[in-house]
Amino acid sequence: MRKVAIVGVGQTRIEEQWEKSLREIAGEAIFAAMLDAQREQVDGIFVGNMLSGMLNRQENLGTLIADWAGLRYIETCKVEAACGSGAAALRMAIMAVGSGEMDCAIAAGVEKMSEMRGGDITAALATAADADYEGAQGVSFVALNALIMQRYLHEYGWRHEHFAPFSINAHNNAIHNPFARLHESITEKDYSRARMISDPINLLDASPTGDGAAAVIILPAETITSNGHKPFHHKVTIEGSSSVTDTLAVHDRKDPLWLTAAEKSAHRAYAQAGITPKDVDFFELHDAFSIMAALSLEACGFAARGQGPRLGLEGEITIQGKIPIATRGGLKGRGHPVGATGIYQIVELVQQLRGEAGENQISHARIGMAQNIGGSGATIITHILRAHHS
Amino acid sequence: MRKVAIVGVGQTRIEEQWEKSLREIAGEAIFAAMLDAQREQVDGIFVGNMLSGMLNRQENLGTLIADWAGLRYIETCKVEAACGSGAAALRMAIMAVGSGEMDCAIAAGVEKMSEMRGGDITAALATAADADYEGAQGVSFVALNALIMQRYLHEYGWRHEHFAPFSINAHNNAIHNPFARLHESITEKDYSRARMISDPINLLDASPTGDGAAAVIILPAETITSNGHKPFHHKVTIEGSSSVTDTLAVHDRKDPLWLTAAEKSAHRAYAQAGITPKDVDFFELHDAFSIMAALSLEACGFAARGQGPRLGLEGEITIQGKIPIATRGGLKGRGHPVGATGIYQIVELVQQLRGEAGENQISHARIGMAQNIGGSGATIITHILRAHHS
Repeated sequence: MRKVAIVGVGQTRIEEQWEKSLREIAGEAIFAAMLDAQREQVDGIFVGNMLSGMLNRQENLGTLIADWAGLRYIETCKVEAACGSGAAALRMAIMAVGSGEMDCAIAAGVEKMSEMRGGDITAALATAADADYEGAQGVSFVALNALIMQRYLHEYGWRHEHFAPFSINAHNNAIHNPFARLHESITEKDYSRARMISDPINLLDASPTGDGAAAVIILPAETITSNGHKPFHHKVTIEGSSSVTDTLAVHDRKDPLWLTAAEKSAHRAYAQAGITPKDVDFFELHDAFSIMAALSLEACGFAARGQGPRLGLEGEITIQGKIPIATRGGLKGRGHPVGATGIYQIVELVQQLRGEAGENQISHARIGMAQNIGGSGATIITHILRAHHS
Repeated sequence: MRKVAIVGVGQTRIEEQWEKSLREIAGEAIFAAMLDAQREQVDGIFVGNMLSGMLNRQENLGTLIADWAGLRYIETCKVEAACGSGAAALRMAIMAVGSGEMDCAIAAGVEKMSEMRGGDITAALATAADADYEGAQGVSFVALNALIMQRYLHEYGWRHEHFAPFSINAHNNAIHNPFARLHESITEKDYSRARMISDPINLLDASPTGDGAAAVIILPAETITSNGHKPFHHKVTIEGSSSVTDTLAVHDRKDPLWLTAAEKSAHRAYAQAGITPKDVDFFELHDAFSIMAALSLEACGFAARGQGPRLGLEGEITIQGKIPIATRGGLKGRGHPVGATGIYQIVELVQQLRGEAGENQISHARIGMAQNIGGSGATIITHILRAHHS
């Protein structure tokens, strides 16, 4: 498969976009990416989305969006892998361009969640879990994560307050990201006093949902020279891309505190890129809940088993740290429009690797990693991107 | 992209499968395909499905099915393109294996519709149309097709009874297909007296939904020699594969009686395969409604504009005809479990090309074509398969 590059990125701010329809939100991100890439035509659009049928009464979503974007007669479809839908759509775009079947593809992610009431959203999100053996028991998605976090605290002896740095770091970084949903810093006191959602997960452990879309444009790497409005030193290639699944139900795993799919997915991506975790300059992980940040850091080789929170407590996850995470706010601060999140992560990787991350910029960022998760560790997709500075 | 072959097929009977869950239905088809191919491991599963979120409260469907099938740690996702989801999933499997990213992939389609009441199904199916500009007007999916058929009768001077051969042929062929939902022949009188659904579409113009799953196994063509339990002369390769979209809403098209996406998709597939319509030995088209059979035959070059019904009236669509369609019953007789239908069509192509179609066998079948449609002509995916007889 030929190597591919990302030549354009676009995103909308994550918020309650009452005045815009699903197609308009998606179009905004796609048009921004096409403008960024200076392209007017593509061969296909792969749309990551989880909830359009349930929340927006709209399927055939790929065609809706291609039609709205004026990209008539191209190939398109919707790709669903719960909250991992965005990265799953990117996988398709990579294979489409990598195989030579397409010369240019868009991977987009979109979700419009504000139209429904909270209870309906909770029920819709529960469809990411096993409907027959988890959902039918009334276990919501946050409840599953709460069970995991409870066990983690018990098993490794951490207290809830030790997870505060994940949330504080994400909020701090989101302040400087104009596309982020939340723009307010929080303190340790805020964190420990936040309203309980599902013990031990409180409001500040959980990421906010929202309406939003993001898009990236994929081309064969060898075709990128100095053309386009971005100079050649902005060339960003995809060096690793791997999707791995585990059991859908958490109770079917031997060790619910270890993300086997994250470990396998990350290590396959490392091997493809020819790197080790030490080479990763920053890591956009899937911090839907703070416990997932800790588990991801461990499974991907940045912390020893049960030691994820230590990285936060030692300041190593900030922009200046050893392994910066949630550099533009992460799911916690930027927001989590579920099927779009995986593409937001890739947009943020590209911004960092191009040196366009503003106040959040990591100095000398050369290799970035993103990991998008569908379900409670069930579907895990890792991407490694590299900047080529001339 | 390297050429790929289909080395295993599996399907379940389409019916109301009250005693089986979504995962069990899918697993049955997947296990049958793996047994047929004599394979125990694959690298990925792409699952075509439209309605699992709305009807079964289950997303993350790819992972559910991979998990159930015991295929741990592989790549998977759900692919959605309304009633074209099955063929859209096949497109992904072709690109995954064609690119070299995978050595073996499953394309499966599954839908479980019986759990819900008719009104809920009608509302769910309406999400294949434009929710804001068609669905919100209360236009159901059958109503959209009825508007098209009404206009077609007016424009080209046909009467409703001229569409009877499409339905009669499909029912006749389904009788000999053990996996078909309907096993009863019908007469012209039955057709004209059937209960009206949405004028002029009556019950015998419309395909029955149902619960069902189908699966095919994709390998690189060059790796297939004489191994496996099927002899080499059963080798079936994919020679053409093309997905094209039009406007989602029917009213946005200049000519709602012409399936531009079908025309473009078929002609791209013909070019890939190096053939013309005359070389196609049989055509599994998307006869969700009898009007779609006529429009598909015209757009794909088998009949002149407005002359689709003539092929039926002249007996050319039967097993012995010039261009046999719905050879195992089509959507009308075999049944239409929406997201699975595209894969059922491919299974039937392979059966014909292997000479395993029993009473429905087309003599000397060498090139078969399938066309799967999502929405009212919005997303159209064509595949051309070829048998290699040693």
